Amino acid sequence: MLNTPIVILNVKCYEEATDKNLDRIIEAVNTASERYSVSAAIAVQPTDIHRVSITSKVPVLAQHVDPIKYGSHTGYILPEAVKFAGAKGTLINHAEHRLRIWEIDELVKKTKELELSQVVCSNNSDVSRAIAVFLPEFVAIEPPELIGGDISVSKAKPEIIEKSVEKVKEITSDVKVLCGAGIKNREDVAKAIELGSDGILLASGIVKAKDAYAACEEIFRGI
Amino acid sequence: MLNTPIVILNVKCYEEATDKNLDRIIEAVNTASERYSVSAAIAVQPTDIHRVSITSKVPVLAQHVDPIKYGSHTGYILPEAVKFAGAKGTLINHAEHRLRIWEIDELVKKTKELELSQVVCSNNSDVSRAIAVFLPEFVAIEPPELIGGDISVSKAKPEIIEKSVEKVKEITSDVKVLCGAGIKNREDVAKAIELGSDGILLASGIVKAKDAYAACEEIFRGI
Amino acid sequence: MLNTPIVILNVKCYEEATDKNLDRIIEAVNTASERYSVSAAIAVQPTDIHRVSITSKVPVLAQHVDPIKYGSHTGYILPEAVKFAGAKGTLINHAEHRLRIWEIDELVKKTKELELSQVVCSNNSDVSRAIAVFLPEFVAIEPPELIGGDISVSKAKPEIIEKSVEKVKEITSDVKVLCGAGIKNREDVAKAIELGSDGILLASGIVKAKDAYAACEEIFRGI
Amino acid sequence: MLNTPIVILNVKCYEEATDKNLDRIIEAVNTASERYSVSAAIAVQPTDIHRVSITSKVPVLAQHVDPIKYGSHTGYILPEAVKFAGAKGTLINHAEHRLRIWEIDELVKKTKELELSQVVCSNNSDVSRAIAVFLPEFVAIEPPELIGGDISVSKAKPEIIEKSVEKVKEITSDVKVLCGAGIKNREDVAKAIELGSDGILLASGIVKAKDAYAACEEIFRGI
Repeated sequence: MLNTPIVILNVKCYEEATDKNLDRIIEAVNTASERYSVSAAIAVQPTDIHRVSITSKVPVLAQHVDPIKYGSHTGYILPEAVKFAGAKGTLINHAEHRLRIWEIDELVKKTKELELSQVVCSNNSDVSRAIAVFLPEFVAIEPPELIGGDISVSKAKPEIIEKSVEKVKEITSDVKVLCGAGIKNREDVAKAIELGSDGILLASGIVKAKDAYAACEEIFRGI
Repeated sequence: MLNTPIVILNVKCYEEATDKNLDRIIEAVNTASERYSVSAAIAVQPTDIHRVSITSKVPVLAQHVDPIKYGSHTGYILPEAVKFAGAKGTLINHAEHRLRIWEIDELVKKTKELELSQVVCSNNSDVSRAIAVFLPEFVAIEPPELIGGDISVSKAKPEIIEKSVEKVKEITSDVKVLCGAGIKNREDVAKAIELGSDGILLASGIVKAKDAYAACEEIFRGI
Repeated sequence: MLNTPIVILNVKCYEEATDKNLDRIIEAVNTASERYSVSAAIAVQPTDIHRVSITSKVPVLAQHVDPIKYGSHTGYILPEAVKFAGAKGTLINHAEHRLRIWEIDELVKKTKELELSQVVCSNNSDVSRAIAVFLPEFVAIEPPELIGGDISVSKAKPEIIEKSVEKVKEITSDVKVLCGAGIKNREDVAKAIELGSDGILLASGIVKAKDAYAACEEIFRGI
Repeated sequence: MLNTPIVILNVKCYEEATDKNLDRIIEAVNTASERYSVSAAIAVQPTDIHRVSITSKVPVLAQHVDPIKYGSHTGYILPEAVKFAGAKGTLINHAEHRLRIWEIDELVKKTKELELSQVVCSNNSDVSRAIAVFLPEFVAIEPPELIGGDISVSKAKPEIIEKSVEKVKEITSDVKVLCGAGIKNREDVAKAIELGSDGILLASGIVKAKDAYAACEEIFRGI
């Protein structure tokens, strides 16, 4: 179980998230997390999970796992394998890797058995509510039209966050809600928390920043 | 460039290919490769590439890469990332992860730029010939009905190997042909080489063997 | 809106569902539906919707529609197109054509705008409950391991039907539940209704029967 | 077998290609084809194949077929079904519906058995050459960056057409080459033919024209 409020950083497959630069980003998140006493997690590429898990105190997440069991699944990402490599959880159904509804159900069940945290991404408040039925640890709401952009969801569409929080809580109070898409500064973060989020999911705001640590400070201070 | 004749071991997502047991398999392949002076390579899960690359002298391959560039591709496998992690090449279009024709074209071009070897899998002799047009380092022919079974392709369908070798060579003599599916013992291997293969691609024959090193010896002696 | 209790026949891509034989099946369902005063619908291949809609009194459904809008989507199935061709509704997320969670959300919304009925298929009671969040007209529960088999879900796994009905009703009483998979005779049908279903979804039981009309009688009498 | 030189019109899922407007487009193509004695074919949505086939003298093509056999494939498009509905051939691997390499191989073989013509789409000259290995009736080259645009491939990238023709002919002289993407007027058409094409594949140039017949005249005169 991940503590909240939380900042989850998805480094995607950005050029800035390779090799030594990734190490700098990981260090920045670890330092800011400790300094501001805010829970954090970092979602990295499958090839980086093992290496990053060794040095990062902040938990490492997979960006994706496939709904497969041990066996003949060449080239797919096995939930057990990310656990062995050191991951403490995984993103599921990210906007860039959408899953079938049965796959989400199966992956939430499987990752619970493996004691991996689940951050299931969603595109709107109805889908957030449907995902809540599967009782993941987190639903992360990211309106697709705002992902990677300069306007944060908490500013552009505050009602989506409010409505998602409300609809998820109608199903259960056990599922926490994260606010994603376009978050760049402490106002965006503060607004997300004010709207009922238990944390944020972000990517380019830190990974593509010139100074990763300064960007982390800006974000972590908002919580 | 990988030397030939070659034995390529794909450990898939088998339960036997996790953690310490994987280490034993890697060691067995390394020892047999050195002892019998036969070139070898090992295709592992993305989460294992970095760890295995550090200790294995035998080159490590990815089981799959996605046709993506740096950017927003959460949860996909970036060719640059497997290279950074230590892979020397990759399987492409494996029977359990088939690709679109444009993806194969793009991945062969991209992995050549990255100086990664390509082992492109194929299901029959016509597809082998079409793949040869893209000039990968290897085409590996594995009739789907024989994969994971007890009968080797070199025994059950020797004409598929012969025809694939012939059709690939009509396009170019630069592409080497591997024989896959069902290979279990040195007769299967010897037959594959006799039919014109430059090596073999196998999985369960070694990974699921009780004694991985004994299984390796049996296979490497056949070459 | 389709009346209940209802028998929905999915003719799949069975060889028995082509051309003149399809006409006989359509006629059998129409006759039995009228004779036993039981609501029915028939899900046919996209190429058959127009032709069948002209003659069948029983409403015709599409087997699938894609979550696309007018535009450049060569080879996909446009919801507007099946409506123009005469369909009164569509199956969504059939076991043989599973969809992403956002696609189900979008398709339910889109087909409602087009006044097409939705029969959204589901593999277990949790997924049924999540689908109910989208408020389709029907959820059809078909445990994958029973599809196409000889044992009906109402006999083999009555608890799945009961639990699905219960879980769906927790979300809303507006969504009706259909029971699918393995239904062959009037006892299977009667049991499904007794367990709380509003009707049944079946395929091979009628399409592959030697005498389609006799098979229809057997099924329609059970309701 | 379709005669050449040929104009193939893909109506996609354009809003302009529905219902009565589709009838007008079909009529325009038929009239122009007869008047200018140029072979033509029309690729329509699966739901329209049957209706259009009854009235059009110009052969009707499917926009896509799936690599399936008779059986449990709910919601997929069966090659036999488009044949029964009246199609004389099909597009395969269109840019908006890309296929796996084994699927192209299988579909070319299957449609030949069914005596359906194949128009296999390609994105560049290497992929065109690989497709030629499967010996379809046509390879249609459409650089993805030009599809739906205002600049024709014959003007923007004449070398792609020349190179595709050359590479395809290296494999076999039996496969004809079509030029697609961005074709709007008779100069584009004439240039395509001059570069070695056996015809053209177009869409928006006619379907989105204010006067479909005038647009047809412009195109058919170029051949």
